[in-house]
Amino acid sequence: MARIVVMGAGIGGISQVYELRKQLRKSHEVVLVGDSERFEFTPSNPWVAVGWRKPSQMTVDLRKLMQKHGIEFHSQGVRRLHPAGNSMELNDGSSVSYDFLVIATGPKLAFDEVTGLGPDTGYTQSVCKTGHAQTAFADFEKLVSNPGPVVIGAAASASCFGPAYEYAFILDTELRKRKIRDKVPMHFVTPEPYIGHLGLDGVGDTKSLMESEFRDRHIRWTCNAKITSVTDGQIRFTEMDEDGKERKQHELPFRHSMILPAFKGVDAVFGIDGLTNPRGFILIDEFQRNPRFPNIYAVGVCVAIPPVGPTPVPTGAPKTGYMIESMVTATTHNICRAIDGKEPDTRATWNAVCLADFGDSGVAFVALPQIPPRNTNWAARGKWVHLAKVAYEKYFLHKVRAAKTEPYYEKTVLKMLGARRLKDAKQ
Amino acid sequence: MARIVVMGAGIGGISQVYELRKQLRKSHEVVLVGDSERFEFTPSNPWVAVGWRKPSQMTVDLRKLMQKHGIEFHSQGVRRLHPAGNSMELNDGSSVSYDFLVIATGPKLAFDEVTGLGPDTGYTQSVCKTGHAQTAFADFEKLVSNPGPVVIGAAASASCFGPAYEYAFILDTELRKRKIRDKVPMHFVTPEPYIGHLGLDGVGDTKSLMESEFRDRHIRWTCNAKITSVTDGQIRFTEMDEDGKERKQHELPFRHSMILPAFKGVDAVFGIDGLTNPRGFILIDEFQRNPRFPNIYAVGVCVAIPPVGPTPVPTGAPKTGYMIESMVTATTHNICRAIDGKEPDTRATWNAVCLADFGDSGVAFVALPQIPPRNTNWAARGKWVHLAKVAYEKYFLHKVRAAKTEPYYEKTVLKMLGARRLKDAKQ
Amino acid sequence: MARIVVMGAGIGGISQVYELRKQLRKSHEVVLVGDSERFEFTPSNPWVAVGWRKPSQMTVDLRKLMQKHGIEFHSQGVRRLHPAGNSMELNDGSSVSYDFLVIATGPKLAFDEVTGLGPDTGYTQSVCKTGHAQTAFADFEKLVSNPGPVVIGAAASASCFGPAYEYAFILDTELRKRKIRDKVPMHFVTPEPYIGHLGLDGVGDTKSLMESEFRDRHIRWTCNAKITSVTDGQIRFTEMDEDGKERKQHELPFRHSMILPAFKGVDAVFGIDGLTNPRGFILIDEFQRNPRFPNIYAVGVCVAIPPVGPTPVPTGAPKTGYMIESMVTATTHNICRAIDGKEPDTRATWNAVCLADFGDSGVAFVALPQIPPRNTNWAARGKWVHLAKVAYEKYFLHKVRAAKTEPYYEKTVLKMLGARRLKDAKQ
Repeated sequence: MARIVVMGAGIGGISQVYELRKQLRKSHEVVLVGDSERFEFTPSNPWVAVGWRKPSQMTVDLRKLMQKHGIEFHSQGVRRLHPAGNSMELNDGSSVSYDFLVIATGPKLAFDEVTGLGPDTGYTQSVCKTGHAQTAFADFEKLVSNPGPVVIGAAASASCFGPAYEYAFILDTELRKRKIRDKVPMHFVTPEPYIGHLGLDGVGDTKSLMESEFRDRHIRWTCNAKITSVTDGQIRFTEMDEDGKERKQHELPFRHSMILPAFKGVDAVFGIDGLTNPRGFILIDEFQRNPRFPNIYAVGVCVAIPPVGPTPVPTGAPKTGYMIESMVTATTHNICRAIDGKEPDTRATWNAVCLADFGDSGVAFVALPQIPPRNTNWAARGKWVHLAKVAYEKYFLHKVRAAKTEPYYEKTVLKMLGARRLKDAKQ
Repeated sequence: MARIVVMGAGIGGISQVYELRKQLRKSHEVVLVGDSERFEFTPSNPWVAVGWRKPSQMTVDLRKLMQKHGIEFHSQGVRRLHPAGNSMELNDGSSVSYDFLVIATGPKLAFDEVTGLGPDTGYTQSVCKTGHAQTAFADFEKLVSNPGPVVIGAAASASCFGPAYEYAFILDTELRKRKIRDKVPMHFVTPEPYIGHLGLDGVGDTKSLMESEFRDRHIRWTCNAKITSVTDGQIRFTEMDEDGKERKQHELPFRHSMILPAFKGVDAVFGIDGLTNPRGFILIDEFQRNPRFPNIYAVGVCVAIPPVGPTPVPTGAPKTGYMIESMVTATTHNICRAIDGKEPDTRATWNAVCLADFGDSGVAFVALPQIPPRNTNWAARGKWVHLAKVAYEKYFLHKVRAAKTEPYYEKTVLKMLGARRLKDAKQ
Repeated sequence: MARIVVMGAGIGGISQVYELRKQLRKSHEVVLVGDSERFEFTPSNPWVAVGWRKPSQMTVDLRKLMQKHGIEFHSQGVRRLHPAGNSMELNDGSSVSYDFLVIATGPKLAFDEVTGLGPDTGYTQSVCKTGHAQTAFADFEKLVSNPGPVVIGAAASASCFGPAYEYAFILDTELRKRKIRDKVPMHFVTPEPYIGHLGLDGVGDTKSLMESEFRDRHIRWTCNAKITSVTDGQIRFTEMDEDGKERKQHELPFRHSMILPAFKGVDAVFGIDGLTNPRGFILIDEFQRNPRFPNIYAVGVCVAIPPVGPTPVPTGAPKTGYMIESMVTATTHNICRAIDGKEPDTRATWNAVCLADFGDSGVAFVALPQIPPRNTNWAARGKWVHLAKVAYEKYFLHKVRAAKTEPYYEKTVLKMLGARRLKDAKQ
């Protein structure tokens, strides 16, 4: 009889406990350790920030659900992991032990790397957490009653640029609907070397596609930008040239701003020798397993992956929905084998499939593998992407409520994209 | 009983007298003061310049028409307006008095701001007046019999770039038809900071769209250009950099050239304190009414509007067909109310809707509002734009002949664009 | 009775003997002098280089064919032409005399202009000859078993860039099929001032089209590049700026490389005063006839034409399939007239029509005339281009085997393009 603990109750963690519960005999214990009573569907946060969703529409109470499905549930959050002792200390001082551990915490949001950044300062907003998005919505409503300039973007070393683009497009769409877009100059500030880089050195010709979309929506931009500090209504950043030398200092006023932070590993694991890299991300082998502590696995944003290539301002590579799904499935297989005393044999697909919502339209990216050059590489634009993203939300929330384990990207998105691609190719 | 005089018999003025005549009781006098016996449909001038129209096809005799519709008509042109005396002196020394005045003169063409510019010098052509376009056609026929380089563009401080683009594309189309395009290198010289700026900082992604169209037609270009002088067959201009510093001096030979001038206010009003801005454009409030002389209104190209934003070489913002139409309607309403002793309450829509003809195709722009960022912002290319422009000409000439007052853009173009946009969005 | 010798048994030469044989009475002798027993369909060479064709599928034995059709055939190759004596010395020491000569040798491949370039060094590959393409395929198979960086491009003064682009796209397509594209970084190195120049200063907006295609396929590029030397697995080149000054020195490693050389005239004619220009290309008048030796005509790649315009690194203008076809037809007419004692009166169409295959798609170019500005100018992308190219190969090989004389471009490609253009224009 084994006890498997999953640390983190987000998209990765929740999928992980359901899959493990389904695959393992009843005699094995599956434990979920989150830091809240509720599951948040993170991809919907930008919609919360402009009022298209209420938090109640995209969060799910976990307590009863876990009880119903025979999963032990803790919601106090982890203070510190003790891998040598196969246990973790929770924030209330209690302790949880495990035979196998899956780390699925997501990132720590490193707002502190830029003075004045983040929702705690009240200067810039975030869509990384549903709570942040709620705060952002309050700030957005102030913008609506008193329109003025908006700055959206990402800090240096950020690795997940999609939500910044999404928020820019969604905000633009909502402001147009309210017929006040004309009173809101928008500027996009990013460490990416070009618009559409996405931490992936582009996918298909996302450079042309996104630049054109920005021009079309009159969103100005600065690339190779390192944000240095934020004060109330002012953002300062340095623009670098191609060789990484300082090109220009900028200062922009704003009445509303959403800046994505860089990601780090969470405090509970940060600095554990052999478990994490210097930024606190979990080191894993090709089977999602930590080399030093082979009973520890990791899935999702908390795993360590190398950047795509050097950029004048540091950027990281994102972990997208399909990759996370695939990591969860591989981890389930490999833990089942480990319980049976076998070696792990399943690898995740390191492919990026991503739906970026524009509010009224969207862009779908397929990058196989994630890092270029690629065997498959595709980007397409259309209203169908927006609809697909809504469908993904509905599906996933249903999955959480009904304890389903089908992978969405694998079953639905890839097929949809395949059909779409075929249609485009016929032209 | 009130006497309302409309000064100017172009697209704005002719629509204005018809609308006023229709809305006002017979006892009120409606007076039209033009500077010619004929109405010219200005947008067709580029077609005259390449022989696609004869002047007789796009001009209308006004004398009998005005008589038929009970509108007093003067064709001598105004020497000087005397707003303090509610009267104007005509070029023949006679005088016309008014209770209400609508200024709809269009611009003065400031050819004199560049040495050697304009049809009077015989060096460069113009499509601003039908007479100019006739002269341009004679020059075009010389080009056809002796092909050589062509330079098309606009002078610094120009505000209406559409006809320059149209003329470039139409000329290209006609030269291809005649199979001599291969003997005519073409160069476009403009103060705009980029191709497709249009004095509007672009509409949708007109930058990509127009640059691609220019490359496709092998029209070379220089932006940020300030034309300094023209001599017979030689044009000199300075190219500025982004910061407005001189980048390069250019000199280009040409065998045919069409350069749009900057616009100013007409002499009859220039320098009247409180009525005009320093360039002679009529100052108006949101109700088309001059603040100093509240019985004076203005519509069309002669009104003062701010530029979209600073550019390295000065540029202005254009007044497009839909704006003019909307100004006329608002003015009619407000004058009717003023006659009844009420305050004006109707505002024009400051939106740009524009059809730019390419001869074989065209681009339609929708910019609401005119100045970015915008609530609606759209550009599309297709043969249908050329056909829509021809339809607009036919409709407007019919309107003038039959004294119709329906607004064309409001009723037809916006619907057509809406349908087209829907079609594109479905893709 | 006249004896007409055609020197060269490629696409031009083989078409030439068939047309002459068909047009001339039996009493006239038609002679073909090649340097091999086999005809090679050169455009298929890139397919040979990735294994999509075997040489046997795109070559044809000439000996029996020529015998069957009453054409005298020599396959030893020409050592030296003696135009003053109306004869040529073959490589075996024998001699062939003529009354009329058509030079259709194609180019000499000037690999020697860059140290280390070309298949003889074993460093870089070529697709100019079927034998080269076979060697390239062997090298490609090594790449497949040990993937690594690829460099594709063209040397300074090259004039035929299409096959370099084709090979880049075809290689990309094949590597994707084999799912190893992710292990093969690709770089394109070209003297062209921009991607899509093609020695033609672009056709339509090939700049946007090809740049986008390169980004889409993650092929990096350097333009204005002058390759200076190649060693085993290393290529060195100088990047120039717009004004032709050195901008940067580059050195790239490769595991597989295909670099097109500059073209020169073949040794057999090089340096014959009055017959060739300094690079050995045959000087011709508008009737394909050499001014100094009026019984000598030339068709195809061996004729002298001026470059499109100066470029920072020298480039030449290509001779495309349609031009060659047209030169052959004009030459046939003019020789028939000359035999009858009349002056020549037929001119070739100096138009570029080109199908560039991408393996899974392709781009069709129409440039009339070849040098911009043009009367017709068109580029379009689609899978149909790949299919059209396959059809051209099948057709031409059938034509060679069956001694047909119909021009393919004239009869088929132009019609197809016309239909396609009409379809696009309807949008």
